[in-house]
Amino acid sequence: MQELLNTINSPKELRLLNQEDLPQLAKELREFIINIVATKEGHLGASLGVVELTIALHYIFNTPEDQLIWDVGHQAYGHKILTGRKDIFHTNRQIGGLSGFPKREESNYDAFGVGHSSTSISAALGMAIASQLKGETKKQHIAIIGDASIASGMAFEGLNHAGVTDANLLVILNDNAIGIDPSVGALKQYLTNVKKGTQKQDNIFEALNFDYSGPIDGHDIDIIISELEHLKTIKGPKFLHIITTKGKGLKQAEEDQVKYHAPGKFNAQTGDLIVKSETIQPPKYQDVFGHTIVELAKQNKNIVGITPAMPTGSSLKYMMDEIPERAFDVGIAEQHAVTLAAGMVTQGLVPFCNIYSTFLQRAYDQVIHDVALQKLPVIFCLDRAGLVGEDGATHHGVYDLSYLRCIPNLIIFSPRNEIELRNIMYTVQLGLKQPIAVRYPRGRGVTIDWKQPFSKIEIGKGIQLKKGNNVAVLSIGAIAKNVNEAIQKCHEPQDIAHYDMRFVKPLDEPLLHAIFKTHETIITIENNTIKGGFGSAILEFASANNYKNSINILGIPDHFVEHGSVNQLQQSIGLDVESLISYINGL
Amino acid sequence: MQELLNTINSPKELRLLNQEDLPQLAKELREFIINIVATKEGHLGASLGVVELTIALHYIFNTPEDQLIWDVGHQAYGHKILTGRKDIFHTNRQIGGLSGFPKREESNYDAFGVGHSSTSISAALGMAIASQLKGETKKQHIAIIGDASIASGMAFEGLNHAGVTDANLLVILNDNAIGIDPSVGALKQYLTNVKKGTQKQDNIFEALNFDYSGPIDGHDIDIIISELEHLKTIKGPKFLHIITTKGKGLKQAEEDQVKYHAPGKFNAQTGDLIVKSETIQPPKYQDVFGHTIVELAKQNKNIVGITPAMPTGSSLKYMMDEIPERAFDVGIAEQHAVTLAAGMVTQGLVPFCNIYSTFLQRAYDQVIHDVALQKLPVIFCLDRAGLVGEDGATHHGVYDLSYLRCIPNLIIFSPRNEIELRNIMYTVQLGLKQPIAVRYPRGRGVTIDWKQPFSKIEIGKGIQLKKGNNVAVLSIGAIAKNVNEAIQKCHEPQDIAHYDMRFVKPLDEPLLHAIFKTHETIITIENNTIKGGFGSAILEFASANNYKNSINILGIPDHFVEHGSVNQLQQSIGLDVESLISYINGL
Repeated sequence: MQELLNTINSPKELRLLNQEDLPQLAKELREFIINIVATKEGHLGASLGVVELTIALHYIFNTPEDQLIWDVGHQAYGHKILTGRKDIFHTNRQIGGLSGFPKREESNYDAFGVGHSSTSISAALGMAIASQLKGETKKQHIAIIGDASIASGMAFEGLNHAGVTDANLLVILNDNAIGIDPSVGALKQYLTNVKKGTQKQDNIFEALNFDYSGPIDGHDIDIIISELEHLKTIKGPKFLHIITTKGKGLKQAEEDQVKYHAPGKFNAQTGDLIVKSETIQPPKYQDVFGHTIVELAKQNKNIVGITPAMPTGSSLKYMMDEIPERAFDVGIAEQHAVTLAAGMVTQGLVPFCNIYSTFLQRAYDQVIHDVALQKLPVIFCLDRAGLVGEDGATHHGVYDLSYLRCIPNLIIFSPRNEIELRNIMYTVQLGLKQPIAVRYPRGRGVTIDWKQPFSKIEIGKGIQLKKGNNVAVLSIGAIAKNVNEAIQKCHEPQDIAHYDMRFVKPLDEPLLHAIFKTHETIITIENNTIKGGFGSAILEFASANNYKNSINILGIPDHFVEHGSVNQLQQSIGLDVESLISYINGL
Repeated sequence: MQELLNTINSPKELRLLNQEDLPQLAKELREFIINIVATKEGHLGASLGVVELTIALHYIFNTPEDQLIWDVGHQAYGHKILTGRKDIFHTNRQIGGLSGFPKREESNYDAFGVGHSSTSISAALGMAIASQLKGETKKQHIAIIGDASIASGMAFEGLNHAGVTDANLLVILNDNAIGIDPSVGALKQYLTNVKKGTQKQDNIFEALNFDYSGPIDGHDIDIIISELEHLKTIKGPKFLHIITTKGKGLKQAEEDQVKYHAPGKFNAQTGDLIVKSETIQPPKYQDVFGHTIVELAKQNKNIVGITPAMPTGSSLKYMMDEIPERAFDVGIAEQHAVTLAAGMVTQGLVPFCNIYSTFLQRAYDQVIHDVALQKLPVIFCLDRAGLVGEDGATHHGVYDLSYLRCIPNLIIFSPRNEIELRNIMYTVQLGLKQPIAVRYPRGRGVTIDWKQPFSKIEIGKGIQLKKGNNVAVLSIGAIAKNVNEAIQKCHEPQDIAHYDMRFVKPLDEPLLHAIFKTHETIITIENNTIKGGFGSAILEFASANNYKNSINILGIPDHFVEHGSVNQLQQSIGLDVESLISYINGL
């Protein structure tokens, strides 16, 4: 079926093809991607959009000597398939299988590991400068970056530096006017004008000293090849602007680019999504956030919502649809998102700033310097906290409790279920005098009937979920579900108490005193690294109060956790129900 | 002497003056700043450069209703003096006195606290959007930002968002071609071209949808006023480009802008620096870094140095002078600096990436995602770690041990003196398989004769500095000096052991086992927050190994520490020698 593709086990073989065969190869590569993602799931649209570019790059450049850096990386499926990973591509994103993103350990064609956006220009420039210092004059360094990612501050920093070097760097802007959601911002408008020809060629990238060419049709392989051949001969920083269609080659994916970014299972022939049977399930945490903020914002006119480029993923989309004037997608700009929220608070607004845990790492200084230092009550909603599953090491949100806990003035809360998330959202918008981070996991909760009347949560108060005589298990957040199941199945459930501490900061010290005085053994459980997290907070409490109880800290071990289903990953690190049962029984 | 200035206790009085009196006021304000900074020290050049702008802004706009946000903030001395703080301005940067930066608690004219660069556009936009939502159509929101700061990614994110709003935002670019050191980057070159008229007015800021005006002479108060009057009437995002001279009005400060950024004491009449008597002192840690990297780089051709806009402050300047092709000032671009280093490592270079502790917060995600996750041996040299003194809460580097300790694969070392810093730099460039952070304080060390032959430090090994029977003090980094002095003066010095653990990660576990088995009481001391830092690491070790020793954690308490001399601040939080003596004696 894929006659040409089947002959290609590395770019070396690709480069033996005649140029006129490449459109056929593109067709086959596209089919291959569609067929596998249809059944194995994964990111679809981005990789379909760069099939021609991917082929052209490996055809023209001498990979892996020449270095390709695929920004974000979920556009790199074609690259993986052409670089010797075709036969195992069906293991994509599964435990033990290929990573969904380029990864240095996986292949020497993956010049740099990616996952978070906008890193490619800096990394490629670093390589280009290194080549220059080593006197490697022919080596090419190519960053391929989307229009949503290039609008992020980090990419600008890279461009700004590259423009004053004569490093051999090629930046290719894959302009499809969309990230996961449609791109936003002034730069995007500008790029649109360039495409329409209303902006002259003497443009923003030339202003930054790049040799600019384009825009060209990113689906015309001959045009791309001739442009790359030309650019290969030019020294210094170069910029190629190509126009592509996300989801190219699959009608539904072209038409509904948001849904087909990562569509789940679908029919490879028709493109239709495979709808799962309609059993009633608990909601996703993100939807609890999305629906609740709309509900609250209708009552409280000061509430605003902010997302850095994740309207769909955070479900702030609901508010953007219903109350657009108070819901802001600021693009991939976490730093800006946080300080924007801080500015809004000074004027009496109540901003809910929704950022994935892993991406808040991008705005760490702003949380400290612009928010906490000024004690401004920004409400951070950290989605995808804890293990996220198939996206893997680049995306697990397992550091936030540690990196936030050291910040003065900041409250840290983690809901164990949907109702707690709703109620903390209700509570904080009533008027808080300091900032708060509310961290909750990816995926579904545990409560079908979650839309209960609001009730206020007392800041800093934990609760007892179950009584017990000897052992006290202190959990934080949604991992309470595993703990609860595990305790029920332990040898002596009556011996084991379970507390949901709720607040990592401030700790419920009265409750802790009561617990430490009545339980010899304490176990803490968190979906966060064991270094400096919730468990450490309990140790600090015990030390400060001179308690000598035995304290056992369970959480994410101090290594990067790879990809796989959340349950598989929990098993691998001892946080699944069975592991917890063994652990508790073994005490 | 300052007849006009003396009549001004608030901008209200300023606005009663005739416009033709303003140049005289500018003269007086400049004198006032010079006279005070000459004796009390502080930032000089930046504030002298914006005297006319400051007067014009308060003259034209209805402050504090209209909101001024001074990026970075050390340009705001004139602003402070004109807004009711003239009589206490001599307390600037002293403990209990005025902050060296705008600060919301200090005055309602300080619309937003600043200190780190490039936050002003985001904050002002947040305020402008809030005003819009509240229907306040006349309120003005003004960000004043330098050309070094606007090149930082965060500022670009703010511009990119603002350009698609119709918020009432005015961004004033104070273009003087210098930050602390001369500005760098493609944008800076571009701005230079604009100034020279070689670039047309249809420019990069217009491309981002701003209503651009300028460049105008930032020392001609009439021109500024007429431009501001005009801009007041325009709705939506506006951009005013003004050209100023840093240090304007003091000859030496204009001629040596780097030295007169914060010159220390000088003669207010002549401008000459007051040279301190030439007693031989231990070197500054930054100079140990600066000289040592040059020494090592001469032997190891793979070494490169990177600083984000701190050549002088980090002393990478020495390498930039001696080996310019391998020393990079990338501008205020911490994110880029880190990922650039990561890219370089993949090609076999050995980058020393020197970033102030407080500014590494800006590149936190890059440290995790681009460096540690890929186990790339970037060498981070974190200057200004711990309390920094007069710069205060915005600049203390007291979170790094906590926010770095939770990152897998990262080594964390803190030298207790100059020789240890030299030797770790020597050690790591011999070939390391993972990244390391080396954190050291602002200011001088303890060793006159510091330039000793290199010797290798074993990774993960702490050392005993003093034997003792009952109590073991475990310190990390340069605070060892205080500990050492304190122990000598305690009632029973022979009872107290002192260990320099050196590595916060990995901990020297064999040494810790030995300590915990032989000392009932452990004290940990660090120049870092007590939340999640070195002390917590020791607690985690004790818990994991079931030790029941009494452990006492000393460090920075969990609140923001204000400004003052390092010694005063140490006293205020119990880390000075006297406090340590009392603490140890009281055990």
